[in-house]
This record gives sequence, C-alpha cells and structure tokens, in this order.
Amino acid sequence: MQNLSARFRRRERVIGYWSVLDAPVAVEWLSTVGYDYIAVDAQHGLLGYSGMLADLMAVDAGAQKTGTVGLVRVRANTPADIGVALDAGASGVIVPMINSAEEAKAAVASAMYPPFGERSFGPMRSRLRIGPEPAVANANVAVLVMIETARGLDHLPEIAAVPGISGLYVGPSDLALGLGASHPKDPAVADDFERALVQVRDVASEVGIAAVIHTPDGRTAHRRLAQGFTGVTIASDLTHLEAAARNHLTIASATE
Amino acid sequence: MQNLSARFRRRERVIGYWSVLDAPVAVEWLSTVGYDYIAVDAQHGLLGYSGMLADLMAVDAGAQKTGTVGLVRVRANTPADIGVALDAGASGVIVPMINSAEEAKAAVASAMYPPFGERSFGPMRSRLRIGPEPAVANANVAVLVMIETARGLDHLPEIAAVPGISGLYVGPSDLALGLGASHPKDPAVADDFERALVQVRDVASEVGIAAVIHTPDGRTAHRRLAQGFTGVTIASDLTHLEAAARNHLTIASATE
Amino acid sequence: MQNLSARFRRRERVIGYWSVLDAPVAVEWLSTVGYDYIAVDAQHGLLGYSGMLADLMAVDAGAQKTGTVGLVRVRANTPADIGVALDAGASGVIVPMINSAEEAKAAVASAMYPPFGERSFGPMRSRLRIGPEPAVANANVAVLVMIETARGLDHLPEIAAVPGISGLYVGPSDLALGLGASHPKDPAVADDFERALVQVRDVASEVGIAAVIHTPDGRTAHRRLAQGFTGVTIASDLTHLEAAARNHLTIASATE
Amino acid sequence: MQNLSARFRRRERVIGYWSVLDAPVAVEWLSTVGYDYIAVDAQHGLLGYSGMLADLMAVDAGAQKTGTVGLVRVRANTPADIGVALDAGASGVIVPMINSAEEAKAAVASAMYPPFGERSFGPMRSRLRIGPEPAVANANVAVLVMIETARGLDHLPEIAAVPGISGLYVGPSDLALGLGASHPKDPAVADDFERALVQVRDVASEVGIAAVIHTPDGRTAHRRLAQGFTGVTIASDLTHLEAAARNHLTIASATE
Amino acid sequence: MQNLSARFRRRERVIGYWSVLDAPVAVEWLSTVGYDYIAVDAQHGLLGYSGMLADLMAVDAGAQKTGTVGLVRVRANTPADIGVALDAGASGVIVPMINSAEEAKAAVASAMYPPFGERSFGPMRSRLRIGPEPAVANANVAVLVMIETARGLDHLPEIAAVPGISGLYVGPSDLALGLGASHPKDPAVADDFERALVQVRDVASEVGIAAVIHTPDGRTAHRRLAQGFTGVTIASDLTHLEAAARNHLTIASATE
Amino acid sequence: MQNLSARFRRRERVIGYWSVLDAPVAVEWLSTVGYDYIAVDAQHGLLGYSGMLADLMAVDAGAQKTGTVGLVRVRANTPADIGVALDAGASGVIVPMINSAEEAKAAVASAMYPPFGERSFGPMRSRLRIGPEPAVANANVAVLVMIETARGLDHLPEIAAVPGISGLYVGPSDLALGLGASHPKDPAVADDFERALVQVRDVASEVGIAAVIHTPDGRTAHRRLAQGFTGVTIASDLTHLEAAARNHLTIASATE
Ligand SMILES: [Mg+2]
Ligand SMILES: [Mg+2]
Ligand SMILES: [Mg+2]
Ligand SMILES: [Mg+2]
Ligand SMILES: [Mg+2]
Ligand SMILES: [Mg+2]
Repeated sequence: MQNLSARFRRRERVIGYWSVLDAPVAVEWLSTVGYDYIAVDAQHGLLGYSGMLADLMAVDAGAQKTGTVGLVRVRANTPADIGVALDAGASGVIVPMINSAEEAKAAVASAMYPPFGERSFGPMRSRLRIGPEPAVANANVAVLVMIETARGLDHLPEIAAVPGISGLYVGPSDLALGLGASHPKDPAVADDFERALVQVRDVASEVGIAAVIHTPDGRTAHRRLAQGFTGVTIASDLTHLEAAARNHLTIASATE
Repeated sequence: MQNLSARFRRRERVIGYWSVLDAPVAVEWLSTVGYDYIAVDAQHGLLGYSGMLADLMAVDAGAQKTGTVGLVRVRANTPADIGVALDAGASGVIVPMINSAEEAKAAVASAMYPPFGERSFGPMRSRLRIGPEPAVANANVAVLVMIETARGLDHLPEIAAVPGISGLYVGPSDLALGLGASHPKDPAVADDFERALVQVRDVASEVGIAAVIHTPDGRTAHRRLAQGFTGVTIASDLTHLEAAARNHLTIASATE
Repeated sequence: MQNLSARFRRRERVIGYWSVLDAPVAVEWLSTVGYDYIAVDAQHGLLGYSGMLADLMAVDAGAQKTGTVGLVRVRANTPADIGVALDAGASGVIVPMINSAEEAKAAVASAMYPPFGERSFGPMRSRLRIGPEPAVANANVAVLVMIETARGLDHLPEIAAVPGISGLYVGPSDLALGLGASHPKDPAVADDFERALVQVRDVASEVGIAAVIHTPDGRTAHRRLAQGFTGVTIASDLTHLEAAARNHLTIASATE
Repeated sequence: MQNLSARFRRRERVIGYWSVLDAPVAVEWLSTVGYDYIAVDAQHGLLGYSGMLADLMAVDAGAQKTGTVGLVRVRANTPADIGVALDAGASGVIVPMINSAEEAKAAVASAMYPPFGERSFGPMRSRLRIGPEPAVANANVAVLVMIETARGLDHLPEIAAVPGISGLYVGPSDLALGLGASHPKDPAVADDFERALVQVRDVASEVGIAAVIHTPDGRTAHRRLAQGFTGVTIASDLTHLEAAARNHLTIASATE
Repeated sequence: MQNLSARFRRRERVIGYWSVLDAPVAVEWLSTVGYDYIAVDAQHGLLGYSGMLADLMAVDAGAQKTGTVGLVRVRANTPADIGVALDAGASGVIVPMINSAEEAKAAVASAMYPPFGERSFGPMRSRLRIGPEPAVANANVAVLVMIETARGLDHLPEIAAVPGISGLYVGPSDLALGLGASHPKDPAVADDFERALVQVRDVASEVGIAAVIHTPDGRTAHRRLAQGFTGVTIASDLTHLEAAARNHLTIASATE
Repeated sequence: MQNLSARFRRRERVIGYWSVLDAPVAVEWLSTVGYDYIAVDAQHGLLGYSGMLADLMAVDAGAQKTGTVGLVRVRANTPADIGVALDAGASGVIVPMINSAEEAKAAVASAMYPPFGERSFGPMRSRLRIGPEPAVANANVAVLVMIETARGLDHLPEIAAVPGISGLYVGPSDLALGLGASHPKDPAVADDFERALVQVRDVASEVGIAAVIHTPDGRTAHRRLAQGFTGVTIASDLTHLEAAARNHLTIASATE
C-alpha cells in the first residue's frame, strides 16, 4: 500500500477521483482504473456513515493491482467526523472550510494520536491499513485542509505552516462564492479566483507541502498540474455519469 | 405517465438507459436526462430486491419533467420474479433467455392478471403507476422477451406471435455465444449475428410489435434505429462511468 | 413463546396483523399491540430478504410482553423460499396460490425436516425460536396454504387433508379474480365469493384445521370470526397508514 | 414544484405530515395524499442519513400529482446537519431548540449561501429541487426555528426578527417540559402553555412570518389553524399506525 | 427489564459485552448468552446510525430470557449524539474522553430531561424501554463517563461527584497513550497505568458509583472484578471472531 | 489471485471458513487470516443478495496479502441462483442437496458459459475476478456439489463423474438426517454416517476431484484432512462468536 501522505508531503504528482455516491460496486471499478486515491465525499456527497464505509472497503477491494487508497472529505472539522473516517479505513482526510491556523491545528489534532494529537485510539479498519502503531499511523495519515473561504485565503501562510498538514486543497466553488461570485462560474471574480490559486500554489511550494485542487475533468486537471499544482482531484462520478448518459442520448436520437 | 407498453406495440421509437447499480441517487439523475425508460437489471446487475425497489423509486423521483418510466430485466422467467418487479412499480419487464413460445406465454401469464394471465393481485407500488384495475394494468404493462439463444432464434415467429408480448429484445452477448462465439465480440460469428438481428427486426415488423436491442453506446444505438429497430437500450451506467474515469485520467496524466 | 401452529390446529381464535413494509421500527411497535402474529408479506410486500429478516427480528424485539410471533407469506411455493423464511425465524409460512394437494404437499415438505419432509437443516435464527430439534421444529411450524384460485377451490378437500397443514388461508382479492371478477370488489361475483368462503370454512372445520381469512379492517375481521372463521389477518400497515393520514388531512383542512 | 418557503413567509395556510420512519415506501404513499410537505424527523425519528435521503427521494417520487415537498427536522443546529439535509434535497429545515437570536442567525447562516449565509456549495440532490443558483436557493429554502424552551420563549421577538427565517415552529412536548411540566400533557402547565402559544402566534403575525405548530391529529391541527396558526404538522406515521392497529384489534376481538 | 442504571449506582457486579459490528444477527445471539448489557460502539465501531439502531433492536430481540439491555458508547459528548442513542432505545450511554466536571455535567444534561437536564423530548424507541415519563427515564438511564485522558485523571474527584453519573468507565488504550505510552500495551507506562486504575476504583468507591473497565477477555475481566472494579466490559466481537478463526486455522493446518 | 478451482481438481489441500452473517467488516478481517476461501452461505445464512455481495467485496478487500477468495453456497440449484452468485464475484459455488447426476449436470450448466454450459453472459463483478473470457471463466470457476441426502449417496459415482465438477462437498447435518438421525448428532446413525464419508472420500479419489467436508472446528477439520478429505470448511462465524462470548462470560463470572 502506497504511503499517500508521504507522497503529498514530497510534493509528488498525485491524481485522484471523487465519489459522491453510496455505490460501492462503482467505486470498486473506479479503484481498478489507476488513480492514486479515490476521495469519498462525506460533506456534500449523498452518503452517510454506511456509504462511506462501504465505499472505502470497495476502494480496497478494487486496489489489488492499482494500489489506489481511499480518502474522505469529512462532513465537518470535528474530532468525531475525522476520527470515524480514519477508523473506517481512510488513508487521510480532506477537511472543509478551514479559516485559520487554529482550525487547521484542530484538524491535525483530530487526525493524529498523542502525543502529537488527540485522536482517540480504536483503529478498527484502519488497523488493516495504516497502523495500528500510533507513531506509524501519525506518519502515514494524510491531512489536507481546504482553502475555500476569504478568511482562509487571508491566513494562508499560517495555515500552511501548521505541523502535520500534508497539503492545501482548493475548493473552487466555495472559494468563488467567498470571493463574491453570484455562482461558482461567475466571470466577475475570474481574475481574483486565478490570483487566489496562484497564492495557494506558491504558499504550498514555499512551505513544502502539497498544493491540490478540485477539478471537473481531465483537461482542467492537466492544466492545473501544468500550472504547478502537485495534486488534482477529478470530480465526480455523478456528474460524469450524467454527462455520459446525456451524450449517448443526444447521439442516439440525432435525426439525420 | 407515458404508456410505454402502447408505445412499444405501436412501434414508436423508444430509447432507454440501463442501470446495473444499486445507486438510487445516480438513477434519479439519469431519470432527469430524458430517456423513455430506465431499465434496472435484476439478472446481471449488482442489485437485489432492495436495490431494484430503490432504483424504481428513484426513476419516479427524477421523472417529474421527463416522464421516464422504470423497467426491470428480471432475474428469471418465473411468476415470482416477474410479479415482484411489477408490484415494485416497474412499468414492464424484460424477460431473459426465452427459448420457445411456451416460455413466452409463461412470461405473459406472469405479467398479466386473470383472465388474461395468472399474476397474483397485490399491486403495492404498482397501484401508484399502472393500475390497480386488472384490465388497466394488463393494458399498460410492457412485456419484452429476450431473444438471445439459438433456440429462441429458431422459434422466432411463434414467440413473436404470443398474445400480450410488447416486443422482442435482443441480448447481443448471449446471442453471440449462442451462435458459437468464443466471446461476445468474436468476429467469427459476426455475419451470423447480423443476420440474426435482421431476422428479429423483420419478424417483429411482420407481427407488429417492437424490435428492441441492447447497445453499448449512442453511436451503436443510432445505427440500430436506422437499421429498423424500433427501440434501443444504451448500457450501462457502470461501464460508462468507468470509461469516463479512465478517459479523464489519461488526459490528466498526459505528459506533454 | 406461544405455539401458534398448535393453536391453529386446535382451531383457537387467532388474530394477526399484516405488514408489507421494510420498516422494522414500525413492526416492533405493532408487535407490542397484542396481535397473535404479525405476518410479513414477502410475496406482494415491498421487501426483500433483508426486510423480511429485519421485520422478523423486530417482531421478537417487541414481543417481550405480548408473545406475538412472526409469520411470512412466502414469495412462492419453493423449498428455498420456505426454507429461508423459517431459517430467518418465522414461526410459520403462508403459502400463496395452492391449486392442488400436490402443491400443498410440496409446501409441507419444504417446511418440515425429514423424515416428515425435506427441509434442509441450518436453523440459524429459527434455532432461537422453534428448534433446533427437527421433531420439535416440525411440531411447531405453522403451514397455512392459501386458497385463492378456482383450481384451489375445486380441490379443497384434498388440499385440506394433506398431513402437516395447519390451516386454509383465504386470499380474497385473487380469489375474486379467480371467480371471474373484473376487480377485487366486483359485485358481480359477490355471491360466488361468499359461497366459496363458506366452503373453505366448512372443509376446514370437517378436517379439523384452521380457517383463516385476510381482511382489510377490524370490522370485517370481527364479522368473519362470527361467521366461523377461526383466524383473521387484518391488512395492512401501508393502507392503514395512508387512510389515517388522509383522514387527518381532511379533518385539518375542513373549512367550517 | 411549489415554493414552500414563500408560502410560509406569505403566511398562507400550510398543512404538513411528519415521518419518524426509515420507510420510503410508506413516505411515498403519504406524499400522494395531498399534504403541502412531509417533514422527516432526523432529531427524534428512527433514521440516520440513509433513511433521511431515502425518505426525501420517496417524497419526490410520490409528489408528481400533489406537489408535496420534503422538509427535515435536523438533528442539531450545526452547519453540517443543516447542510446535509439541504444537499439531500430538503426544501427547508426545522431547527430544534432555538434559544436566542444568535442561534437563529446561525441556523439561517447554515441554510443560506454567501453573501447572505455561510452554506458550503455542493448542491447535489438539491440541484434538482431548489437551485443550484445560490440566490435562487436562498430565496426558496424554508427555515423554521423551533420555539420549545423557556429561553426561546423569553427571546421570541428577537428570534422572530432574524432575517431569513420563514417561521416559528412550536414543539409542544419540549415546551411543556420547559414550562415545568412533569410530562408533556401535564395539566399543571396547561394555562402557561396556551399563553405561550398565543405569544408565538402574535409575534409571528407582527413580524410577518409563519406560525407553525406540531399537532398529534387532524382535530388539533384544525383547532390550531382556527386559532391563528398559519401552519400545522400532523404527527406521526408511527403513532398513527400503532393507533390504527390497536383500534382494529379492539374491534376484531370484541366479544359481543 | 432490569434497571441497569440502578445496578451501576448500587455498585452491583455487572458484566457486559462489546460490539463494534453492524451485525444484528450476531448481536441477537450475543444477547442470549447472559451478559448484563451489550454495548454498541458508535465511536470506534464500524457502524453508523442504522447499525446502532439495528443492533439495539437485536439486543432486545435476543433478551427475552436473559434480560440483557443495550448501551451505546456515543461518538462524542454532544446533546445530539447522546439524544439519538437514547431515543433509539439504549438503556444508557458511555461517554468518551471526559476531561472535566463540566464535560461530565454536559453528558448528564444531554441524557436527562428537564428539570434535571436538557434532553429534548421525543422518546421514540426509548418509550418502549425506559420511559416515557421524564422522571422515570431520568431515574433509569445509565450515564458512564470515560476516564481515559491525563486531564480526566487529574479531575477524577470532581468528575465522579457530578450528580447523575452512574459510574466511571476506564478506556485503557487511550488512557495508556494519555500517560505517555507509545502504544496501548507499552510496558513503560505499566506502573502508572495500574496506579491510575486504583485511583479510579477508589474514587468511585468513595463517591458510591460504579467503577467499570474495558477488558479484552474473560480472564482480565475476572482479575479486574477481583481487584474491586464493580463492572467489566469484555471486548470485542470483531477481535474474538478473528482470534477464533485464526486459532481454528492453526489447528486444522497443523502438520503432524 | 489463486485458481481455487484448479486446486480443488488437483486435490490440493484447501481450508476454508464459513460465514452466515451479513457483516462485511467481519468478513474482511476473516479474509486477512489466511484461509484459502471464505464461503458465504446464501442457503441457511442470514443474508440476502446485498449481504452476499457485500461479503464477497469484503473478502477481496481483505485478501490483498492472503489471496483468499470468496465462494457462495447458493440458495438453490437454479440458473438464477448460481448465475447471480458468480456475477457478484464468487470464485465458485457450493450447490446444496444434489440427488442425482442430472442435478449435478444442471449445476455445472448454470455455472459455465456455452458451449460447455448455459450460463448467461453478464460478468459484472466477476469480470474483475475470473473472466470475462468465457473459456477462462469456465476453467476457473469452482463447482462443488453437496452430498447430503440418501439419494445423493446412492448416486455418488454418477454424480462425481459429471464433467465440470470440482469436488464433492459433504453437508453433515442434512446427511445425518437423511440417514435417519433424529438430530444432526444422533449417535444412532454414527456408523452409517462415517461409512458414508468414506464412500464420498473414495469416490472423489477415484474420479480425481476434491473431497470436501463441512466441520465445526479446527480439530475436526484436522481429523478429516488426516482421513483423506482434500478440503475442509470450518463453520461458522456466528457459532464461533457465540462460543467465545459464552466462554469469556464463564471465566469472568467464575466465583473463586
Ligand atoms: Mg467546498
Ligand atoms: Mg443476456
Ligand atoms: Mg393473493
Ligand atoms: Mg422538541
Ligand atoms: Mg477510548
Ligand atoms: Mg445442508
């Protein structure tokens, strides 16, 4: 099993996929494709605990040849949300809406055992993955903090400097709204948005941690990697499936 | 709600989509795309009763603007398999591996109430869709019999003539194997395979029922419609999702 | 735990309730009300194996003060359908669409261990209820065969005489259709229908087994008991819930 | 789809039903009855995330003719609880135990996107219902704050004045306990309780938002509407089902 | 049904078992064995709400002869986490990571109705078990606070003195880490660890509440009871099952 | 992934474990222990389709280091039951209650694609395991037929000679009952029972296929291997868990 946390911190190129579905059969297939990780979205995804757990097991079931691992975007930055995701076998967490170094520190504390953090010990499924020795688990767990608010952007350097963080993770939709957009693709904030991305990329580079960004497709992902991001997530199963079905229908029903 | 059965029997053009996943959230989205039906695969799909039911509810949840209805490809040609699919709210059934007129008659008998058939009365969810009056339900239920074996092909005219059948439905993979192929795409049987399709198309046309075929994508679907099939199903969510994820990864990780 | 099978065979008065929902929390509450049994409908109910099992566990969870036991109306008269219902902890089975003594014998054989029958041994949950000794299980399992077709009616005496049967169970909707009704309440067959009920009642009485009938409400149930039926089931949770909700809405929205 | 939020704010009469069960089949039927909304109880109801989601999908599946929409009474007043309910497709939230204007503001902030609130963007199922444009979603989401504590009662005017609130929602049981009752129906607090309801009704009227109250049946609901409440919820599926089953058993087993 | 809370407070000997699995069939069997309680682990266990609910129902289904009751180790010390566990039918809660009297008071407040606490009223399943009268429920609910951090150890007497607490509950793994261990069995802290247990035992004895400890097996449990602990939990189904399977394999594959 | 089918046919020693629980987390752990296979019991186990699928995925999730594969004991000897188990990813099937060569041939036909058999093509999860090429799948699928009735015993040589069978599989409980036992451990049939096992062992040896037997523990398994059986299954998770819990309770509550 790859050590994804170390790869983030070494700023290696990592490419992940994003699932919002409680659909373990689909996730298992996605895990055979060759992504470095599949992130299960417990914040905006359509899944609760049982979906998260089943999806994480499915990642492992499909990963025998690919080494793909599972991450979880947690519902909220609480010890309980982060703890259950890791106990369920996630190799790391993506923590939304980080506004300050204090919030980033709290995320790390929730993800790491004493003495480094305050994670409670009970490494059920995680025992099979990145543990159970506390020091080993602490070294192997990935903690990505999401930069997606104006306040988070204002405190980028302090956030990035929090010990234990594996990388910064840009949430483009919330970030655009946070910059004053009327909707995620609002051209009115396009320049500010791109400037913000450059900031994130540069701060991560200076601190020596990963700069990861959420993208809707392979083309955008490729562009962001070329731009200096070290990681990209391509999202999501639900939108890609809908696009495929729509496209097939258009072709099938074309009249000429 | 459209009367899909009548549309099949009137040989109108119908285009459906195919789901093999217990993933109601995805199915609901697919139901907003505009297909005439979404078929839930209880034979080879990765779902049991609860997945079938949840998917059928999801089709209805998404269909408020599209009028899409749910079909079920049943696990086997038994009164129980056909009855539970219809009771769960399917607008019709696709019955696999029909080898003879007797088997086709049994399928119809399982799908229709007396005096036309022997379906047991208990129209739970179906009450909300195509009933509960027995005569109304009988008139509205779609019964598609799959032609996918050498024996079925040998008895095409008798099968097609069975009263109550809405259409013939080609299962290409089994049909190819039935014609001697070593795998579903085996070029050795390509000519026999195409000849078989022409037979199905022509028999359906003569009898005045639908000729439907399973296809892997919109392009093939378009070609089959142009060839004289009155209906096509595009399959499947799982393979399309995998293809999309694979394609995005290739683009994202391209080196130049 | 009561021996419901013996009570049926002794022709004691038994009153059951009928659930078509995979809703164990509701079933547990129903089990505290005081019915002799709750029947889980695996034929027309909206539930598969997991719903059946959860509902049976819920009956037992609620029965600490009432002694209520769970029955299953099986999906079909097969060894597998009957076996899994009993293994899951049902105290007996209601077997639909019995047309002949042969079919009744098959139902008994599926429900009883050798040498009396051919049930396969693996009394998982049933071990906690009516076993696991084969002879004890055979003595305690209730087997009710449904009389709901014209053919079944024609063979009433032979069916009732099959050793091991606990009682006859009238399915009114199918029976009405079987008698030529255009819908279950069709007044055109009302007289024939009532005559059929008298037949069932009398044959059961002569043979000395239970005469049970499905009813929509307490009033009908009371009438059928007064008429000489020894058992009644009141059905169902779904229709009663809908009626209650509809009634409350009417009262709440009354304009005066 | 109706704009329930606007109807609350226009103080139109709205009548809802209350579900505490993870029983989507039942909820779908309830959604065909004609209520303005069905509220899924994630606080005291017997359901977790998957039950909430399935019930919300069931409301939409049943609403094709009625236009009924789903609300969620959230487990707690947190951004995560409110966010996941809305992302799952709820048309609004009922937020328990609001004690102050600060708590009410937090509820609104969790339910609305920037710049009005701080809801994180990821409108998965909600995209199909009341979005995905942030301004549209903000305009259409219903936010009902529960008045059910002594502290909440003490701060009624400030709470009602919080911008973005659609209405006040009385939780009678907690309110009675909060007023010193030894149990929810304690006659010792009956006068205080009724006075409190008048307060809620009058404050809502002055501010121009909905005054909604939880009721056990249609008769009470009718009385509360007559008294000047603009909305009522009739609760609940579980208690009504139990009452129906108990009533049928009493009638069936009556001896004369 | 036994009053487990009173037994804890009377310092009677109680022996419980620990489940981390969403496996109601297994839990029901465990409930027939004769333990005083089965604790469902919602913190580190592999289960979400639906697993917790199903396991609690399973405990009750199996308890007809044993009187075993269900407890829940809650995910976190919040009103919502404690409220849903009790509403789901738990006879009490085990609250992790209690560091101070304030945290202990918050736990009690979440578990008890006014005027003693602030639990919100909605005793769905709990109505069937330990209520629904608020005073009765308050008297019968068990509240065990976990001592498993250095801070908690430092405030033992204040924590133990909080009114409403049924007992102290030692979490050995976290406690060891909290004492500086590099892993839960680290011999470097063995003496400190044993001294801490003596402290917990003695403080509980002085205050007159239960002293309970988590143990891996019957032998350790027996030793802790002999040492003066009034209660023990033996953990867990998952580890015992693995040990059994491993042991059987070793024996089966032995070569001589 | 090991070719278990070939290992059976080569009469290598194989040792499996047996699960009757819908408990994927437990099954994943069992899959890390080192058994050659884990058999999921769809006949007497407490699981339906979704439990079978989840357990099979769990076997694969846990098998990264052990190579353990999943088998399914199917509910009945039908094309549908065998087909769905294999499509769901089982490496083979154990088919109960085989009474004759015809039944054995039917089992093989259901498990193999044309031209060798009649399995319908749709290798969803199985595509990831033992296919999807028909010839490859046919070569890799294990088909074990259960000898557990008097009739089966009477036709041992013909059954064993059916092409495509990987081995004979003794079901001891049913076999004992079939030999006239009053319960599975009835000493009255002990000699006949042992003679029957010798017959099975010898016929398998002559034909050159596996001789496998179900056993309750490692000690019995070891004895049967020593006696000449080539394979053993140790059963089951549920009984071993109960035994462990019972044993721990006895030790913990011992009074001296
Ligand atoms: Mg975001
Ligand atoms: Mg086919
Ligand atoms: Mg019937
Ligand atoms: Mg309340
Ligand atoms: Mg702990
Ligand atoms: Mg057997």
